[in-house]
Amino acid sequence: MKIELKHLEDLALGSVFLATGGGGDPYVPRLITEQAVKQFGPVEIIQPDDVSDDAYVVAIGAVGAPTVSLELLPSIDEAANTLRAFEQQVGRQIDAVASFEIGGGNSLIPIAAAAGRGIPVIDGDGMGRALPEAQMMSYAIAGVKPTPAVALDYDGNITAFSTKTTEVYERHIRSLAIAAGGMITTAEHPMSGLELKRSIIPGTLSFSIKLGQTLRENRGSARDMLEPLQTLFSDSIYGECRLIFAGKITDKATRIVGGYDIGEAVIEAFSSDEKPLKVSIKNEYLLARQGDKVVASVPDLIVIVDYETSAPINAERLRYGQRVAVFAVGCPDFYRSENALKVVAPRCFGFDIDYVPLEQI
Amino acid sequence: MKIELKHLEDLALGSVFLATGGGGDPYVPRLITEQAVKQFGPVEIIQPDDVSDDAYVVAIGAVGAPTVSLELLPSIDEAANTLRAFEQQVGRQIDAVASFEIGGGNSLIPIAAAAGRGIPVIDGDGMGRALPEAQMMSYAIAGVKPTPAVALDYDGNITAFSTKTTEVYERHIRSLAIAAGGMITTAEHPMSGLELKRSIIPGTLSFSIKLGQTLRENRGSARDMLEPLQTLFSDSIYGECRLIFAGKITDKATRIVGGYDIGEAVIEAFSSDEKPLKVSIKNEYLLARQGDKVVASVPDLIVIVDYETSAPINAERLRYGQRVAVFAVGCPDFYRSENALKVVAPRCFGFDIDYVPLEQI
Repeated sequence: MKIELKHLEDLALGSVFLATGGGGDPYVPRLITEQAVKQFGPVEIIQPDDVSDDAYVVAIGAVGAPTVSLELLPSIDEAANTLRAFEQQVGRQIDAVASFEIGGGNSLIPIAAAAGRGIPVIDGDGMGRALPEAQMMSYAIAGVKPTPAVALDYDGNITAFSTKTTEVYERHIRSLAIAAGGMITTAEHPMSGLELKRSIIPGTLSFSIKLGQTLRENRGSARDMLEPLQTLFSDSIYGECRLIFAGKITDKATRIVGGYDIGEAVIEAFSSDEKPLKVSIKNEYLLARQGDKVVASVPDLIVIVDYETSAPINAERLRYGQRVAVFAVGCPDFYRSENALKVVAPRCFGFDIDYVPLEQI
Repeated sequence: MKIELKHLEDLALGSVFLATGGGGDPYVPRLITEQAVKQFGPVEIIQPDDVSDDAYVVAIGAVGAPTVSLELLPSIDEAANTLRAFEQQVGRQIDAVASFEIGGGNSLIPIAAAAGRGIPVIDGDGMGRALPEAQMMSYAIAGVKPTPAVALDYDGNITAFSTKTTEVYERHIRSLAIAAGGMITTAEHPMSGLELKRSIIPGTLSFSIKLGQTLRENRGSARDMLEPLQTLFSDSIYGECRLIFAGKITDKATRIVGGYDIGEAVIEAFSSDEKPLKVSIKNEYLLARQGDKVVASVPDLIVIVDYETSAPINAERLRYGQRVAVFAVGCPDFYRSENALKVVAPRCFGFDIDYVPLEQI
């Protein structure tokens, strides 16, 4: 299969759903990717199982606070230039690129990079959604080292990292992202084809296109969207999909703290007899509560959509007065393993609760 | 000439004087350099004029908040490992190393690095004193690019930089220093022998040893120290040396802001009829005022010493109640050029005054 121009709209739409509020707005990455596909032609998408064991693959994407992605626009060739700088740093050619996270703009950046370099992109990603920190990536959880890694900023400044742990890598790139204006592009987690197969969340790139298609073709109220979404998700690595709330945004505040968007949104039900839903944000929607009752929590997906159109809404675009619905979706089994929950359970984000899978709530 | 064990005590002492309060405490760098010289033998010191025009020289030193140097101790081989990482990054052997700044611990780190690598150290430095930012280095002012540069942290994590401007380099390494615990070692400003000759403040390494010797041999009250210091400085690139104040520290506060130690010290005269001297600090002592009257300012040197012994005192060691004297010393002509004053005049540190050379005050 090849990713053509016609797929990018659906991919961008699906990726915002899977971004669970974060991931960076895909609007500009989509324009850039369209330009790259027009210029260099469609990009081959290959299944992880079809990658040779000794292939050399690197993950690429943007790192920073999603709010900044609305202001600090990447250039057309930033992604391909990041790959070139990476290849120069390691003295080796890359065979294919993979995505950090299928959620948001980071679903598109690998395609722009692959187009510019004439290499394929892998069908899959390192999160199955969006999550705020490098050590939460499936690559990292499966033991792939984050470095050698290379970061490029908007002005073309290059920084190369070689760190001993993923936590240190995360701290160093985050500080660079802040110093460089809030957003950088990085090529990181270089891995063999064999390592890729063991660590990637497979199929999420083509799934995101299908999800976007579903949202587009069934465009309409969230209540009508539930069934097509349930049909799609039940036949995927995600499983369960629920409509957990509908109402009006009555409060929403985030601040940039340590390079993240941190805050909370409050949604009051259309019918006043229900308790309001509070959604905690750290780049992504992480925890949905009604009073003391947890309705859904990370690593399961919490997705806020426009009530009328079911278009998913990124956290930086949430506004007072919006009429919204909230979906909760199960996460891939990979993220329910003990190993993964060590880095993505609610406690890893400072919430004093245990993770209970959506199906058991 | 070779730098032997016996020189290191005087070098460390002289370097604290030239550090004007900053530069990082030389105690631990001295222990490390002693160890390196014991293990690898004396280090050859060569005059800039004796370096061949096509030699490949790099500057090396610590970057961070001086207070941290009292707690986050560098390892014995950190400096040599930084050079090795630099050579690996650029794929080229280094012929000699130079100092960022002769002030404080950064006078010793190049010697430790040179010993470990068996290469000579240049007699000179990039500041003639200590100053808080990379763009204030004579190398930068003379047009030498800061990158390719490599930073090593206490845990051996390596970061390589390639930036378009010195200002961006400064911002990026500063943010890394903060993320890495407050202090890193960097090899930067690689240059040819020809560029070195045009940009270095010459002779400051051997001068610092002589200065330390003078302070040691004449150990005693600051009033008695004035004459030997004046004799020494008048025959150097510094020129004027004045005893501008004597008294007791009655207030001193610094905070770490953006990776710097920022604050002020207040010294009240022993005789109460004099206005107290206020010394503004950003890592270094930058401005000395009595009421509205400027007594000395950066780029001239302001040095606080113990009143009884004339031992220079770093800002992080200044304490309430200490009896101190304050010397002011002229700076090398290089720093009085229009080009240099663009980056080191008092206004560059936020003080709303013009620079007036010490001799004209």
